[in-house]
Amino acid sequence: MSAVSKVCVVGAGAIGSLFAGHLGAIVETSVLVRRPDHAERLNKEGLRVSGKSDRQVDISAVTDPGALSGIDLVIIATKANAVEGIASGMAGHFPDAMVMTVQNGLGCEALVARYGDWPIISAVTFMSGFKHSDVHVEYELDTETWMGPWEQGSADFESVRNVAELIQKAGLKARAFPSLLPAQWSKLIFNSVVNSVAAATDLPHVSAYAETTAPTDLGHLVRAMMDEGKAVAKARGVRLHEDPWEMNVKAVSHGQTGDDDYAHVPSMLDDVRAQRPTEIDWITGAVVREAAQAGIAVPIHETLYRLVKARESGWASHGSQ
Amino acid sequence: MSAVSKVCVVGAGAIGSLFAGHLGAIVETSVLVRRPDHAERLNKEGLRVSGKSDRQVDISAVTDPGALSGIDLVIIATKANAVEGIASGMAGHFPDAMVMTVQNGLGCEALVARYGDWPIISAVTFMSGFKHSDVHVEYELDTETWMGPWEQGSADFESVRNVAELIQKAGLKARAFPSLLPAQWSKLIFNSVVNSVAAATDLPHVSAYAETTAPTDLGHLVRAMMDEGKAVAKARGVRLHEDPWEMNVKAVSHGQTGDDDYAHVPSMLDDVRAQRPTEIDWITGAVVREAAQAGIAVPIHETLYRLVKARESGWASHGSQ
Repeated sequence: MSAVSKVCVVGAGAIGSLFAGHLGAIVETSVLVRRPDHAERLNKEGLRVSGKSDRQVDISAVTDPGALSGIDLVIIATKANAVEGIASGMAGHFPDAMVMTVQNGLGCEALVARYGDWPIISAVTFMSGFKHSDVHVEYELDTETWMGPWEQGSADFESVRNVAELIQKAGLKARAFPSLLPAQWSKLIFNSVVNSVAAATDLPHVSAYAETTAPTDLGHLVRAMMDEGKAVAKARGVRLHEDPWEMNVKAVSHGQTGDDDYAHVPSMLDDVRAQRPTEIDWITGAVVREAAQAGIAVPIHETLYRLVKARESGWASHGSQ
Repeated sequence: MSAVSKVCVVGAGAIGSLFAGHLGAIVETSVLVRRPDHAERLNKEGLRVSGKSDRQVDISAVTDPGALSGIDLVIIATKANAVEGIASGMAGHFPDAMVMTVQNGLGCEALVARYGDWPIISAVTFMSGFKHSDVHVEYELDTETWMGPWEQGSADFESVRNVAELIQKAGLKARAFPSLLPAQWSKLIFNSVVNSVAAATDLPHVSAYAETTAPTDLGHLVRAMMDEGKAVAKARGVRLHEDPWEMNVKAVSHGQTGDDDYAHVPSMLDDVRAQRPTEIDWITGAVVREAAQAGIAVPIHETLYRLVKARESGWASHGSQ
């Protein structure tokens, strides 16, 4: 693969804006967004990054993939729920591009592959940002984005390394792996448990998630559910990059103050509070599907999956309570 | 046992008020309440029942059990969480009384027995009411209260029949059983599932609880969790009075309109919405404890038990969100 010279970032939420705001400073970058007023404001005002970086870049924003040509790299940075619609709209476009997916959970790469034979890069990101407006994102957690060639596609490791280097040059942190599966599954299991439990309890990621003193303590549930996920990974032949329970313990104890008042609100709890569709089908649902294929029983995952689906169904039929 | 002539109803929520408002019309009835202003208003204005019955009775209300004497029958009609405090306050009082417990779940009889050797009647009630004020309750569902001698106590069936007759004469529906266990466990399993699922999903008891079409449908979870409860009942030697799954299907399909907008809000969901302590320890927690004694695995019950406990913990440490 030759050097990347034209990038299209799909979706300009916090993560998409962080990619576009950094890449836009070193390479020709456009963003594909859903709302015409969003595109219009980006075209007029550009995109500002504050916080851990400081950038102000001109951006070409469009709502139709047909308006773009010569793209080398497409970064799909939307929520998992939006990927199928985006991929179908991309069909027939971007003939020379690689496509990188950066969603939570599993399965977005396969969706993209249905609509074109682009080489596909799997990625997960640990960075975070806060969108102050459609044209201003604050770079909060400057942690890495991890990427590797999608196992079922044609991307090679060399190309992934090129993309990781480009992202590093742009001022973000990135790391290329020959296989992303160990990292993707570690994050999948962590998210499958922490996000669904948060959605079912309205509890941010506080220290209770690692508490195992009394028999009713939440840590027992978290650990037993993570054990289910680990058994599925094992049965699928995936060696985990990091133990999800240790990720959990570290995450709830790491705050400078140790104060639960500053606990992270997992994205699925954020969605539940705003009564937006969650990514449960891509996260906990993915573990349930993988377990079925591996012939492994995951009763706790099934329970949380159905509870969160039921919670979502209430918004449609009964409105805000 | 001779005829009941002096009754004390403990707790004047909806259920306690329904008992007091009906019994007060045919027998000398006092109520024991927590709040002095509640007692004062009842003493001054009496108690009004509307809806399925129409009564206006004089009531003697007190906040101290020591102020009452000659009581034949004590009906404890508070939430399960309040029973221990009440029973300890009753120690040394009501030497000639039978005590009837009307809580959800299991275990309140044993708590009462710790504080005195009163004959104990186990009861569950299916009636419901709505408290318009401290002195006015509306009688909504005019369904039966079921009662039987507590298996580990000294009450005999004859006495239970006398009490059931008294309650019938007062205008409520009641039924005496030689053993309440089959009915108590049917209701326990039904409540253990429906209440905890409602508390974890914010979903009233709508038709989704009986839906088993798609793999993610909530009915699968409800049925699998009820199967756990039924296995525990069987292992404990209890034959169920009614199948909890059939109770569930009937309950969600019975509305005149079949419209989910009129779905029942289970009491535990009502507690969750108001951020009040729930009865989870007495209901789902009771099934978990019985399962442990019987050596039966109940992973779904354990999961829901811990989720609801975690949800409660959030109110204390993080306030209303």
